[in-house]
Amino acid sequence: LPPAAINEIATAIRRGSVQALSRGLSWIEAGGDRAEAIVGALYPGLRDSHIVGITGAAGSGKSTLVAALAKEARRRGLTVGVLAVDPSSPFTGGAILGDRVRMSELFDDPGVFIRSLATRGELGGLCRAAAGSVDLLRAAGYQLVLVETVGVGQDEVDIARVAHTTVVVSVPGLGDDVQTLKAGLFEVADIHVVNKADREGAGETAAQIGAMLALGLSLTTACATMWQAPVISTVALRGEGVADLLDSIMAHLARMRARGELQSRERRAAESRVLKLAQAMVADTLRQPGASGAGFDAELDRVARRELSPYACARGLLNRAAPGKK
Amino acid sequence: LPPAAINEIATAIRRGSVQALSRGLSWIEAGGDRAEAIVGALYPGLRDSHIVGITGAAGSGKSTLVAALAKEARRRGLTVGVLAVDPSSPFTGGAILGDRVRMSELFDDPGVFIRSLATRGELGGLCRAAAGSVDLLRAAGYQLVLVETVGVGQDEVDIARVAHTTVVVSVPGLGDDVQTLKAGLFEVADIHVVNKADREGAGETAAQIGAMLALGLSLTTACATMWQAPVISTVALRGEGVADLLDSIMAHLARMRARGELQSRERRAAESRVLKLAQAMVADTLRQPGASGAGFDAELDRVARRELSPYACARGLLNRAAPGKK
Repeated sequence: LPPAAINEIATAIRRGSVQALSRGLSWIEAGGDRAEAIVGALYPGLRDSHIVGITGAAGSGKSTLVAALAKEARRRGLTVGVLAVDPSSPFTGGAILGDRVRMSELFDDPGVFIRSLATRGELGGLCRAAAGSVDLLRAAGYQLVLVETVGVGQDEVDIARVAHTTVVVSVPGLGDDVQTLKAGLFEVADIHVVNKADREGAGETAAQIGAMLALGLSLTTACATMWQAPVISTVALRGEGVADLLDSIMAHLARMRARGELQSRERRAAESRVLKLAQAMVADTLRQPGASGAGFDAELDRVARRELSPYACARGLLNRAAPGKK
Repeated sequence: LPPAAINEIATAIRRGSVQALSRGLSWIEAGGDRAEAIVGALYPGLRDSHIVGITGAAGSGKSTLVAALAKEARRRGLTVGVLAVDPSSPFTGGAILGDRVRMSELFDDPGVFIRSLATRGELGGLCRAAAGSVDLLRAAGYQLVLVETVGVGQDEVDIARVAHTTVVVSVPGLGDDVQTLKAGLFEVADIHVVNKADREGAGETAAQIGAMLALGLSLTTACATMWQAPVISTVALRGEGVADLLDSIMAHLARMRARGELQSRERRAAESRVLKLAQAMVADTLRQPGASGAGFDAELDRVARRELSPYACARGLLNRAAPGKK
């Protein structure tokens, strides 16, 4: 695709064309040169959207909570982008009827854009696509971007890291209550939600989370001005507690902004993203024999024959992957 | 450390000094420049050792099987290196008394070298250390190298890939019999072992594995000359079936060698290892602000401020990581 065509789509995305945005997101999902080109064209001058990650175990009602949050945000006049990184999310279309009826209201609202992202086989590929998709939603000007992820695995934790505010959703009676702890999600939570709070055991779940937070605080050198993750009870299906949750999300952003923490968080996310991209570029070079050159194939043969050290060969690969050295 | 000192240790390792080997293995485990230097010094001219991976769930008696295999190999006049990549392995010293008594015979034999490798936090780091350790055991001339890994996670499957022959150990009555299937280990097995074969349900477990293998064969275009993974029953604690297992391990190597498959396997292992090393080098560059230069820190700041695309920054990182371009 010629640069002019990329710029045309980029301009259309900035102007708010839903069609252009959908096309750009497909490029992101497919990866490769076009993903790099569209992010490159849109990245300088991305808007100050508030990126909120919503994560938690399957069955915690994340999608319903995301839908309820989107509606509440619309009530307050904010435009909303939703990115569902979860193959089982009702947003992906594989939903039961009740879910789709609840969400149809959102689908009809021009102030809301909803997109789901399919899992890609390649390790880290999902993460890359999620970050690029968030870029495009920011470029399109959505003020609140909700990223729904199923809370399992390293990729999920990494995706949570691109968010300014991370909401971790628990539910009462899902067997093991410390599942978010095991999944490495507990520590990335800026806000804890106990959803389906009308169920039996909701109080205990909230108390348990509170106790773990208190333990964590006692182990760190807590200062008075530190953000303390609140525990908010919701019944997303009936919209209960959702306004409180959005208030808390907004308060977290304001606090981060006032203390200069938003910048350091974006810096950390940038570092992690750049590293992953660079590593993926190295892998891509290896996968394309044409790009890496016949010379490199011969070098790999020499490693296999134990004539050349794998370290020396790896340094050769880096030289080939580095632009301008092909 | 000056190159002369590295070469001195390398020469001593080649000559069979256990002390030098231990020191070299500590360098490998610590990673960094010394690991690269010692592998670089020893890699050209590594011996034709037979690398055998032994993997399976905790409680499958892998360590006992490894010890029994080592004893059987000694009886046949082979020297044996054992690398235990499993924090719960009796080889690491955290063993119960009975295990240590059974293994003390091995510890006293100068024809056997035993080393355990502790898990490192960094993703892929264990894999890197395992490959380097195997190199050193080869350089030292051990004819049979047994690598014991606990069969969980991607790292374990990758470690299995450095082996010429991979033995996957199952036991009857460990609840879910298809656990090796779930862990992605089933497909990397060259030989299946049902250990603790004197237990109830051993016949069923072996039959189940056989049925899965038959199913796999029916799904591929099986040719008559293909290696068909045997299913061998053992009682490692009493040495039963262990001679059969070693015969089968040797037969697998002979078959691979005769059909030229050993080379293609070493080529695949080399490719995967070089890619991981190159990616780790990229990560190392990012972690050392001095090495990557103040200019790169400034670039990351620009990514965080949305002035520079993360892709452009990643290409810059590759240039910095590539040797000769710092």
